[in-house]
Amino acid sequence: MTDPPRRRGRPRREGADEEILAIARDLLREKGYRDFTVDEVAARAGVAKTTVYRRWPSKAALAAAVIAPLVEEVIAAADLPELLARLAALLAGDAGPIIAGLVSDGESAVVAAPLRARLQQIDPTLDFHQATGPIWSRLLVR
Amino acid sequence: MTDPPRRRGRPRREGADEEILAIARDLLREKGYRDFTVDEVAARAGVAKTTVYRRWPSKAALAAAVIAPLVEEVIAAADLPELLARLAALLAGDAGPIIAGLVSDGESAVVAAPLRARLQQIDPTLDFHQATGPIWSRLLVR
Repeated sequence: MTDPPRRRGRPRREGADEEILAIARDLLREKGYRDFTVDEVAARAGVAKTTVYRRWPSKAALAAAVIAPLVEEVIAAADLPELLARLAALLAGDAGPIIAGLVSDGESAVVAAPLRARLQQIDPTLDFHQATGPIWSRLLVR
Repeated sequence: MTDPPRRRGRPRREGADEEILAIARDLLREKGYRDFTVDEVAARAGVAKTTVYRRWPSKAALAAAVIAPLVEEVIAAADLPELLARLAALLAGDAGPIIAGLVSDGESAVVAAPLRARLQQIDPTLDFHQATGPIWSRLLVR
């Protein structure tokens, strides 16, 4: 016979993840990716840093979780021209430098994976780099 | 009559800038852009942080100075195919995530400006984004 598993640490508050993500989104907008810290997210949310790190193991993972729904909106486009227009608008806005930061930190899959899958679905003959490249290059010359 | 201008602080050591840049280059290679700090560069160089900041006002500016000669090598290519091949090789290596970090921190001009000028020189009808875009997009799916 074994004891029932013990919960470690404090019980999770309902909705805490969503609250942390909302705070992370606001902080990214205010500070930009470079000055965005898990410490400040935790402080504003009134939770321990470990609570944030348990769910998102790094600053980049937390920022990726903020960016993910924006990518979902891009790939919800009905066709390629609209998808490319939405992607261009996303990169031209606040999300652009955040996404570049994710690329730098090796967390680009949050953008690249859904985008590739959706392009493949729209047209299996499309080359990802040819189709989206000229949009990424605009990050360099904003 | 005015006094001759007084030098502020300690006199600059000959070659100190080159030494700092070499240390910055090594540290960027070892740690990547995210964990690269001006503090550690100054400590390894045996100079005060302010000595580094006087010459390069931010971590991004110092990293940009490390990347600049690599961009010079790219644009020294004789023609467009070779330039694009050199750019692709640069982005596929250690410099790729560093350049993405510079884009995130608003320091992309170190790459974009010389590249645009050289492309313009090679062929004034070239569109920067069409020509180089598919290479940048490869940063996302390394």
